[in-house]
Amino acid sequence: MSSYGSDKSRVRRIPRRGHYDKETIYDILDETSVCHVAFNYDGYPVIIPTIYGREGDRLYLHGATTSRLLNSIVSQDQICISVTFVDGIILARSLFHSSMNYRSAVLFGKAHLVADEDKNHALEVISNQIIPGRWNDARLPNPKELKATNLVVFDIMDASAKIRTGPPSDDKEDYELDFWAGEIPLKTQFLNTINDPLLKDGIRVPGYVQDFIDKKNNKH
Amino acid sequence: MSSYGSDKSRVRRIPRRGHYDKETIYDILDETSVCHVAFNYDGYPVIIPTIYGREGDRLYLHGATTSRLLNSIVSQDQICISVTFVDGIILARSLFHSSMNYRSAVLFGKAHLVADEDKNHALEVISNQIIPGRWNDARLPNPKELKATNLVVFDIMDASAKIRTGPPSDDKEDYELDFWAGEIPLKTQFLNTINDPLLKDGIRVPGYVQDFIDKKNNKH
Repeated sequence: MSSYGSDKSRVRRIPRRGHYDKETIYDILDETSVCHVAFNYDGYPVIIPTIYGREGDRLYLHGATTSRLLNSIVSQDQICISVTFVDGIILARSLFHSSMNYRSAVLFGKAHLVADEDKNHALEVISNQIIPGRWNDARLPNPKELKATNLVVFDIMDASAKIRTGPPSDDKEDYELDFWAGEIPLKTQFLNTINDPLLKDGIRVPGYVQDFIDKKNNKH
Repeated sequence: MSSYGSDKSRVRRIPRRGHYDKETIYDILDETSVCHVAFNYDGYPVIIPTIYGREGDRLYLHGATTSRLLNSIVSQDQICISVTFVDGIILARSLFHSSMNYRSAVLFGKAHLVADEDKNHALEVISNQIIPGRWNDARLPNPKELKATNLVVFDIMDASAKIRTGPPSDDKEDYELDFWAGEIPLKTQFLNTINDPLLKDGIRVPGYVQDFIDKKNNKH
């Protein structure tokens, strides 16, 4: 796989934490389905969190046809999308070297409206990103819903990942101090499903849903 | 407490999910110490995740004096900061009504450099946001470190929160369908501490660290 990493996306602070290969960036993107999108509105940046699905070098976003987010981003030359995981709190002996373990991806690109005939495909990509298998086990969008929904495709033109792992790293002379140092790891736990209170009798949690939860909880 | 909520920050899509009271917004901000900041760079928006501490109507950010993030944001009239929690995946019978449970805060304001004499206070606010009590149990910043660190204060001028809770909400005629519907709740789990491999013998995890972990894990 090739790489991103222009002058713009290069990690400035602590360059050894920067990564530009697609595999690393896609791994971060594929671990969730919620990103932050930044666009300009009246000349100032606005961030809105939203759901996405990745297919190769592109992300699909969706929303109502009246969505300010979608209508703003398709009119702009370049927007920015970010996905971040905090994996741990790093307590060094010095506050100066205290930090977080994290994985973040920052993407730059251009967003376009998806043509009507491609809307279903884009929605399927998003649906599969949230829970693989759900597209085949739900009531699919009807023509009225499709008409009320805009799909946007974001082409990743440039990107970087920034990753910190491992224990604290203190100044040599501080290792003799009597402060505790270490990591508090953090993890997103997928809890037991809660049935819709209006669920019809006799319907059980589908296998692909339980598999998804189990897989997520065993990761890391 | 008073409220935010200008025309700019008003939640457009599904207005009943919008909240503008400070208590709701501060509750979201106080649950973590990592935010996304958007600023303009060469005319285009850039998002960078970073650590913050809240004190009243302001957030403190920190970084190296060479930080592109900090140097960019203090020169701009307005930037945007966002904090988002995904609390659950909502599977409705229809894909159209499938959703997430979430709490997000979007803040607009202006960032300024903190004067040298106030740097220690700003760092204490950030440190207490990450782990209350750590400031009093770590090696404090020395003059050289303070000189290499910029602190920025972000005044919240306008803000909104958007919150979804509860079960799926399907179209009436879809409740008869045989698809499972419900929620997969998500939760950030704070795992057991990992000692720094270079920790001096006989140093135990401090009580305020363990209390913090226990409190976080019992929440929600």
